[in-house]
Amino acid sequence: MQTLPAVRQLWRDVILFDGYRQWSEPMAVLAEQGIVAGLWPEHEFVSSMAQGAHEAGRGGVMTPGLVDCHTHLIYAGDRAGEFEQRLEGVSYEEIARAGGGILSTVRATRNASEEDLIKSSLPRLDALLADGVTTVEIKSGYGLTVADELKMLRVARRLGQLRPVRITTTLLGAHALPPEYAKDSDGYVDLVCREMIPLAARQQLADAVDVFCEGIGFSPAQCERIFQAAIQEGLAIKIHAEQLSNLGGSALAARYGALSADHVEYLDEAGVQAMAEAGTVAVLLPGAFHVLRETTLPPIDALRRHGVPMAVATDANPGTSPICMPTLMLNMACTLFRLTPREALAGMTRHAAQAIGHPELGHIVPGAPADLCIWDINQPAELAYAIQAGRLRQRVFGGVVQNVR
Amino acid sequence: MQTLPAVRQLWRDVILFDGYRQWSEPMAVLAEQGIVAGLWPEHEFVSSMAQGAHEAGRGGVMTPGLVDCHTHLIYAGDRAGEFEQRLEGVSYEEIARAGGGILSTVRATRNASEEDLIKSSLPRLDALLADGVTTVEIKSGYGLTVADELKMLRVARRLGQLRPVRITTTLLGAHALPPEYAKDSDGYVDLVCREMIPLAARQQLADAVDVFCEGIGFSPAQCERIFQAAIQEGLAIKIHAEQLSNLGGSALAARYGALSADHVEYLDEAGVQAMAEAGTVAVLLPGAFHVLRETTLPPIDALRRHGVPMAVATDANPGTSPICMPTLMLNMACTLFRLTPREALAGMTRHAAQAIGHPELGHIVPGAPADLCIWDINQPAELAYAIQAGRLRQRVFGGVVQNVR
Ligand SMILES: [Zn+2]
Ligand SMILES: [Zn+2]
Repeated sequence: MQTLPAVRQLWRDVILFDGYRQWSEPMAVLAEQGIVAGLWPEHEFVSSMAQGAHEAGRGGVMTPGLVDCHTHLIYAGDRAGEFEQRLEGVSYEEIARAGGGILSTVRATRNASEEDLIKSSLPRLDALLADGVTTVEIKSGYGLTVADELKMLRVARRLGQLRPVRITTTLLGAHALPPEYAKDSDGYVDLVCREMIPLAARQQLADAVDVFCEGIGFSPAQCERIFQAAIQEGLAIKIHAEQLSNLGGSALAARYGALSADHVEYLDEAGVQAMAEAGTVAVLLPGAFHVLRETTLPPIDALRRHGVPMAVATDANPGTSPICMPTLMLNMACTLFRLTPREALAGMTRHAAQAIGHPELGHIVPGAPADLCIWDINQPAELAYAIQAGRLRQRVFGGVVQNVR
Repeated sequence: MQTLPAVRQLWRDVILFDGYRQWSEPMAVLAEQGIVAGLWPEHEFVSSMAQGAHEAGRGGVMTPGLVDCHTHLIYAGDRAGEFEQRLEGVSYEEIARAGGGILSTVRATRNASEEDLIKSSLPRLDALLADGVTTVEIKSGYGLTVADELKMLRVARRLGQLRPVRITTTLLGAHALPPEYAKDSDGYVDLVCREMIPLAARQQLADAVDVFCEGIGFSPAQCERIFQAAIQEGLAIKIHAEQLSNLGGSALAARYGALSADHVEYLDEAGVQAMAEAGTVAVLLPGAFHVLRETTLPPIDALRRHGVPMAVATDANPGTSPICMPTLMLNMACTLFRLTPREALAGMTRHAAQAIGHPELGHIVPGAPADLCIWDINQPAELAYAIQAGRLRQRVFGGVVQNVR
């Protein structure tokens, strides 16, 4: 149920987490024309401060709309069968020989039309929205041909027209080596640099370019070529790095001014320092850590010490993180990575917004877009503490109130 | 939105997990007067087999309604503040000195009225229902006085009148030592045996009796006294055992014919064997394992080898498992404990029903109550593979269809 954005919407007596911190006293919050227009301690608020405003709600916890800054939400097929086979004792090798793994997702995604992809992705997007997401980054990376990567990006743009959500798109042509280039990874990187990136940029389909820097992905030298091509087209850059080993990808990306380096379990102090100097955000992905039963933790203390902003995201993808529940990531960031609930929440609001190059989002301050969540809980830490769907009361996107419950 | 139970409800073309196994071909399922009345391979079905039946749905995956066989769903307050303090560096000792831990929940629950407890517990119950639960076991254990334990059990019974769900109740007076008996644990066990158990039984408030057998809980000898008192009153018995150490509680409980031994991370082969001989179910609680960052796995292989039925439950409780999402427990049972998806699903249906002494539940066979879930997925394994709320399409309780989506 949606209501049109009244000229002025007012929330009374909310416990406020504003993206940085939790306010010590209940607050009144005013939105006007889709923008946050005022914040007052409840006890100082008098109605003349918001003359004629509609009271949209009272009580509960208000946070910025959640920003899921790292997802692979669009794909065809799923890998539940593989998940089952592995647990029933079939080896990775047998599954790969039978055409499983990421290339099975690539095959299914190539065979899918845009309509097919919209149909398979919408329930996942709706699950994110129902759990408080108002902005989501979506990567390509299961097409691995020029046409199929652009198709994925077009689908991402279209999803943003079908639902009240802001979608940013990232070209991840260098996600895996397609079978056609199995013996010519440099040839594939050429294709990414000379065709995919320029076309995605000129058709305004991509906001950023990402790469998978890893032994089983692309080398730092190849990533560097891709960064140069992206920068030439005026696109922001991101990197999947230090997930399984330390190749120095995060530091490399930081030198190129990357918005974020993501995963970073194997990041070392030098990498942390490079990120701090460049203002590169560390995107933590506890869902993949859980699914892969990883044991090496990201260097949280070093990231804190150097003041690197830490974001948290779902990494929603069919292989290593089939998870569409951002609040569960808050729990896992705390339980598995020992973030504090406030760090985790900043990681899905303020710092996530920075990780996608949208510093105007993810906080509740006068002048920011009125993307808000109102939760039926008593304190913000509950979002990370308890694992329970259905606690979102209202989701506000650009000042438009959607009553969820 | 509920519809009255039509005399005959028919589902066509469903992928069926019947509590034991997944059928190899799509099925048609008929319910009549709240009871499963027929199952046919879809291609053999002709409409004369279900003359006059209402077609309630088509396609999707059908499972038995989920059975959450171990919860502490009723309590007042929460421990989100403590969760946050610990992550911010406050020690367990400081939190305990400040009155935190389980005794803070006991204090809040004692101070709460029945109405208060209903109000605080209903959102948690609703979260379970929205994720497919049709039967839930609820334990007392935060009152720790005769009056407060009975109050909790009355609230559990009343929750079953407020929602379309079957609730079984378990008296867990021996959950923790109340402060009044800090130096007299045998005196408290006397109270449990001589007053709580007889009163709960005679007022028909408890279906079973449970104990926490652990160094920080009650000794095997104390548990044995409680089992004897329970059996004398004709109540079934259950045990929290081998969670943090091996005291032989599971084997002890099995000798007394316990329905289940729960947690069992530290269970040894002799304990497994005793459970197998007695038909005692092993209830696995991966949520607490996750929250406590345990590393010792339950002896899954030995349980398999000896044919001990394995159930899976949320353990929903404010301290070690603030989790109201049964399908996440399917994922964690597979990811953390390496159960197969079918074992995990049997663990939340067939074996969970056995763990609460309701062998007529948790399977889809002619004559069983028509407690069913219809999910918008392609195969049952997806329930364990992906972590995503909102996949339940229909929830059927005693033949009454609730359209969830
Ligand atoms: Zn990723
Ligand atoms: Zn328990």
